[in-house]
Amino acid sequence: MNKAILIIQCPDQRGIVAAVSDFLFQNGGNILEVDQYVDQEAKRFFMRACWDLDSFALEKDNISEKFSKEVAEEFEMDFTLHFNQPKARMAVFVSKQSHCLFDILSRHHSGQLEVEIPLVISNHNHLRGVVEAFNIPFHHIPVSKENKIQAEREQLRLLSENKIDFVVLARYMQIVSPEFISHFPNRIINIHHSFLPAFVGAKPYHAAFERGVKIIGATAHYVTEELDAGPIIEQEVARVRHHNDVSDLVQIGQDVEKVVLSRAIRSHLDRKVMVFKNRTIIFY
Amino acid sequence: MNKAILIIQCPDQRGIVAAVSDFLFQNGGNILEVDQYVDQEAKRFFMRACWDLDSFALEKDNISEKFSKEVAEEFEMDFTLHFNQPKARMAVFVSKQSHCLFDILSRHHSGQLEVEIPLVISNHNHLRGVVEAFNIPFHHIPVSKENKIQAEREQLRLLSENKIDFVVLARYMQIVSPEFISHFPNRIINIHHSFLPAFVGAKPYHAAFERGVKIIGATAHYVTEELDAGPIIEQEVARVRHHNDVSDLVQIGQDVEKVVLSRAIRSHLDRKVMVFKNRTIIFY
Amino acid sequence: MNKAILIIQCPDQRGIVAAVSDFLFQNGGNILEVDQYVDQEAKRFFMRACWDLDSFALEKDNISEKFSKEVAEEFEMDFTLHFNQPKARMAVFVSKQSHCLFDILSRHHSGQLEVEIPLVISNHNHLRGVVEAFNIPFHHIPVSKENKIQAEREQLRLLSENKIDFVVLARYMQIVSPEFISHFPNRIINIHHSFLPAFVGAKPYHAAFERGVKIIGATAHYVTEELDAGPIIEQEVARVRHHNDVSDLVQIGQDVEKVVLSRAIRSHLDRKVMVFKNRTIIFY
Amino acid sequence: MNKAILIIQCPDQRGIVAAVSDFLFQNGGNILEVDQYVDQEAKRFFMRACWDLDSFALEKDNISEKFSKEVAEEFEMDFTLHFNQPKARMAVFVSKQSHCLFDILSRHHSGQLEVEIPLVISNHNHLRGVVEAFNIPFHHIPVSKENKIQAEREQLRLLSENKIDFVVLARYMQIVSPEFISHFPNRIINIHHSFLPAFVGAKPYHAAFERGVKIIGATAHYVTEELDAGPIIEQEVARVRHHNDVSDLVQIGQDVEKVVLSRAIRSHLDRKVMVFKNRTIIFY
Repeated sequence: MNKAILIIQCPDQRGIVAAVSDFLFQNGGNILEVDQYVDQEAKRFFMRACWDLDSFALEKDNISEKFSKEVAEEFEMDFTLHFNQPKARMAVFVSKQSHCLFDILSRHHSGQLEVEIPLVISNHNHLRGVVEAFNIPFHHIPVSKENKIQAEREQLRLLSENKIDFVVLARYMQIVSPEFISHFPNRIINIHHSFLPAFVGAKPYHAAFERGVKIIGATAHYVTEELDAGPIIEQEVARVRHHNDVSDLVQIGQDVEKVVLSRAIRSHLDRKVMVFKNRTIIFY
Repeated sequence: MNKAILIIQCPDQRGIVAAVSDFLFQNGGNILEVDQYVDQEAKRFFMRACWDLDSFALEKDNISEKFSKEVAEEFEMDFTLHFNQPKARMAVFVSKQSHCLFDILSRHHSGQLEVEIPLVISNHNHLRGVVEAFNIPFHHIPVSKENKIQAEREQLRLLSENKIDFVVLARYMQIVSPEFISHFPNRIINIHHSFLPAFVGAKPYHAAFERGVKIIGATAHYVTEELDAGPIIEQEVARVRHHNDVSDLVQIGQDVEKVVLSRAIRSHLDRKVMVFKNRTIIFY
Repeated sequence: MNKAILIIQCPDQRGIVAAVSDFLFQNGGNILEVDQYVDQEAKRFFMRACWDLDSFALEKDNISEKFSKEVAEEFEMDFTLHFNQPKARMAVFVSKQSHCLFDILSRHHSGQLEVEIPLVISNHNHLRGVVEAFNIPFHHIPVSKENKIQAEREQLRLLSENKIDFVVLARYMQIVSPEFISHFPNRIINIHHSFLPAFVGAKPYHAAFERGVKIIGATAHYVTEELDAGPIIEQEVARVRHHNDVSDLVQIGQDVEKVVLSRAIRSHLDRKVMVFKNRTIIFY
Repeated sequence: MNKAILIIQCPDQRGIVAAVSDFLFQNGGNILEVDQYVDQEAKRFFMRACWDLDSFALEKDNISEKFSKEVAEEFEMDFTLHFNQPKARMAVFVSKQSHCLFDILSRHHSGQLEVEIPLVISNHNHLRGVVEAFNIPFHHIPVSKENKIQAEREQLRLLSENKIDFVVLARYMQIVSPEFISHFPNRIINIHHSFLPAFVGAKPYHAAFERGVKIIGATAHYVTEELDAGPIIEQEVARVRHHNDVSDLVQIGQDVEKVVLSRAIRSHLDRKVMVFKNRTIIFY
C-alpha cells in the first residue's frame, strides 16, 4: 500500500486534530492511523497521521505546500511529510563485532525491515565476508586519531553519494564528531550496551559486573554531541546472576542489543519517533 | 479536571475522525486524548476521544443527543459517553482469599483508583474484618447449590440499590449465572489465576505444576457465559523453576494476579477498553 | 520442619564439599538443599547447606563448635549457622509512604513471610493507624538535623530491646549514619526507587523522567556507608512510555518497589544471600 | 578446560552428597559446580556435579565403572557421565522458515555454542544456500505421506553415520514418528511457537490472535510421542496489542522462538537438564 505519513509538532491549542483530519478528508484521504499527544507542561502538541495515498486527491509533490498554506502556518506547525515508497535508505556502521550487523542483515533478508541498505562502512575489514555474502557493498575506512577528520569526510561522501537517509551505528566503536552529527540530526541511531544512564562510556558490561547488578540492559538512542546522552528510543533488559561472569554478561547482553536496535530501527522507519527536549515521543 | 470521554465504534469509512474532531472543536472542546484503530479485515472503526469539559459549550445532558443527531447517525455509530465525575461505582466480590481484595483496597485508600467502592459482597464471612477496617460495607451472602438463584437475586438487589456500574470478581470462587451476567455485559471483570487459554477452570496452579511450565500467569477478562472464555483485558506472567512446588506457584502467582487485576480495573475505569468479537481493543 | 542452615565462605581448595557433606552425614543430617559457588578469579568458595534438624545427632548449641573444630578450621572458613526456628526478628522503618509497609504487613498477615515484626519505627506519625491495625507496636521517633544522633540512639535501644536481627528501610527517607550501620552490617535492607546505579540519591523518578528512559526500576540493597552503593540483592523493572508523567512513574514504580523489597526480604530470611566484594551471591 | 559432568538421579536417602563428593575428592577431583534437588513428594534425588579433569586421578574410560561400583550401586543411581571434550554433535532439522536456523548458525559461528553441527536436514531445499554459506553439509530429504517411513530411515542413517548426539527441530514442520523418537529419547529438542499448553498443534499464532491474548510465547521441549506434550525445557513470552495482526504476531514471536530455542540448546549442551515425570529439572 502507498502511504503518506505526516509528523507534526506545534504549540497546543484547540482545533488542531479537526484541522488536520479535515484537510485529509477534504482531499479524499483515508486515514489509517492517527496518534496524538500533548505535553501538558510544555503546552506542546504532537501528531502522527498516516493515510492511504492511492485515492488521495493531491499529487505527492503538492501535499506539503498545500498543507503548509491551509493548515500548518495557522498553527505554527513544524511538520515533515514522508512516504513509504520509495523505501528509506539506511547505512550501517560496524567495527569488529558481528551480532547486531548479522541481526539487521537477516531481518532485512527475510523482509522484516522495509529499508534499502546501500552500504556498510567499517573501520575494520573483519566483517567484509558477512556483508558481501548478502550482496551489500562493504567499505573499509580505517580510523585513527590522525586521520579522523579525513575518514569522516570520506564517510560523508559515501553517505551523500548513496543518498542515505539515516545511519545505524551497530556497535561502531568510534565516537563520531559534532560535525558529522550535524549532517544527520536525530538520524543517527546508536546501540549502547548498557541500560542508560547507567554505565555511560566504554566497557559497560565490566562496570555492570563490578557493581553487581542483577539486571543488565541495552539502549538505542539518537546520537548527539554528548556521549551516550541523546534521546532514548528503546531499552530492554535481561536478568543475570552471581555466577555470570563478564563474558556471560557480554553474551546475554548481545541478545538484548540485537532486539533493542531492531525495534529502534523499526520505529524510526515507521516514522513513529518524535524528539522533544531530549526525550522521544514514540507512537505505536 | 472535568473530562468527557466518547467511545465509538462503527463501520469504517472516510471522514470519521474529521467529523468527530470537528464536532468537538465547534463546541469549544479542548481534546486531551484521541485514539483510533481500524480493524482492516472487519472494516470496523474504533475511537476514543477525551476532552476538557470546563470550557465546553454543551451541557453534559445535551451532548449525547446532539452528537447523535449531528455525527453518530450518519456514520451508524455505536457510541457511549462517559464523565470522570462523579466517580464510577465498583462492587467487589470475594471468597476467602485476601490478596486481590487487599490490593484493591490499599490502592483505593492511597488514591490510585478513582472509583467509589460502595460495597464488598462475599459468600464467606472471612474477610469482613479487613473490609470494615477500610470503612466499606461488607455483605455476607452464602451461596449453595440450593440457594444460588436466590443469592444472585439478593446480590443484584444490592448492586442496583448501590447504583453499581461494574463488578470485580477478586478471586470469587463461584460461577455467576448467564442471568446475572446479562445485567452487566462487559462490566464484570474476573481475575483467573492462569495464563489463559491454558489451564481453564479449577486449580490452574496444580495443572501448571503437573505440566511443568516454566512461566505462570494470570488473566483479567470480562465474564461471559462460557467459563474463562471472555474477552481478555490484561495478562502478566512470572517465571518459575523446577524447585517451586504448587504452594510456591500459588504465592508467586498471587503477585501477578494483583497486578493484572489492578491494571484491568484501571483500563476499564479510564474507558480505554472496547470489545469486538470477543477481543479487546485497549487504548493506552 | 526444623531446619539448620550453614553459610560458608573460604579460600577455594579441593575437598570442601566432601568435608561438609561428610560432617552432616556422620551426624545423621538429611541434606535438604545444598548450593555452592566458586569465584574463579578470586579463588573463593561459597556454600549454603540446609538440613533437617529433627533427626540430627547434635544439639543445636553444639553444632557450631563441633563444625568449627572438625571442618571449618582446616579450611579457614568464615561460617554462620542459622535455624528457621525461632523465627528471625525484623524491624521496619518507614516515613510517610505506605505502599511498601502495607505490602510487607499484608504478606506477613497471610503467612508468606516467616518472620516476627516486633515493631515499626517512623520519623512521622502518619502510618500509625495502619500499623496498629495489624497489632504491631508503632514508634514515632522524629528526626531532625539537630537530634539525629539522639534519635538513632533511641532507635538502637529499641532494636536491642526487641532483639532485632535485621532492619528493613521501607521507603524510610532518612540517611542512616555509619555508626548505626555498624550495628547491623549487611543486615539493613533498603529499597531504592531506581534501577541502580542509575539515579542515585533523591527524586529518582523525576530524574528518570527528565532523561526520558523507557524502563524504570527499583533496587533492594544492603546499606553501607556510601549512599545507594551497597551490595545489590534484587532489582526489577517496568516499562514506561512518553505519555507517562512523573506521577505515573511514581505509581508504576511503587508496584516494582513492593515486589523487589519483598523478594529481598525473602532471600535474606532464607539465608540465601552472601556478600563478597560489594556483590551478592544469591542461591535460589 | 577439560571437564567431566556427572548426572545422577536416585531414591532420596541420607549420605548421597557425601558419597559423591567423597568419591570425587578421593580421586583428586576439583569440583567446579554441584547442584542438587530433592523432589520431596516423590522422594527422589537429583544431582549434577562438574569437575576439572586435568588433575583427576582416574582415566576418562575408567570413571564410569569405578563410580558405579563404589557409589552408584549402593544408592541405586541412574547416572550418566559426560565430557565437554570432544564437543557434542548436533543435527538441525528445518523446513522453510529460516529465523531459528539462522540464529543457531550465527551463534555457532561466533563461538557461543560449544557444539559440532555435522549436518542440517530439511524436507525442502529452500535453506540450502544459507547452510552451505556456513560450510555445513545440507541434506534435502523430501517427506510425504507415502515416503515418510523411508525418509525417516534415511534421516536415521545420516544421524548414525554422523554420530549425532541430539537433534534440534528448528521449525521443522513435520511430525516425527514414535520409532524415530525411540532412537533419541529426551534428545530431540523442538521449538513450538506458542506458550504451551496453550495452542497445541498447527497455526498457534492464528489461534492466539483469535483468542485475543495479550501475551504470546514460545516453548522448547523434548519431543515425545504425544504432540507438543513433552517435557518443557524453556519458555519465554512477548507482549502484543490489539493492533497487532497475525503477521505481527508471527514476527514478534520469531524473536521469542530464537531466544527460547538457543537457551534450551545451551542448557542441554551443559547437561543441566534432567527429566522426571514429564517435567524438567534445570540446574543453572
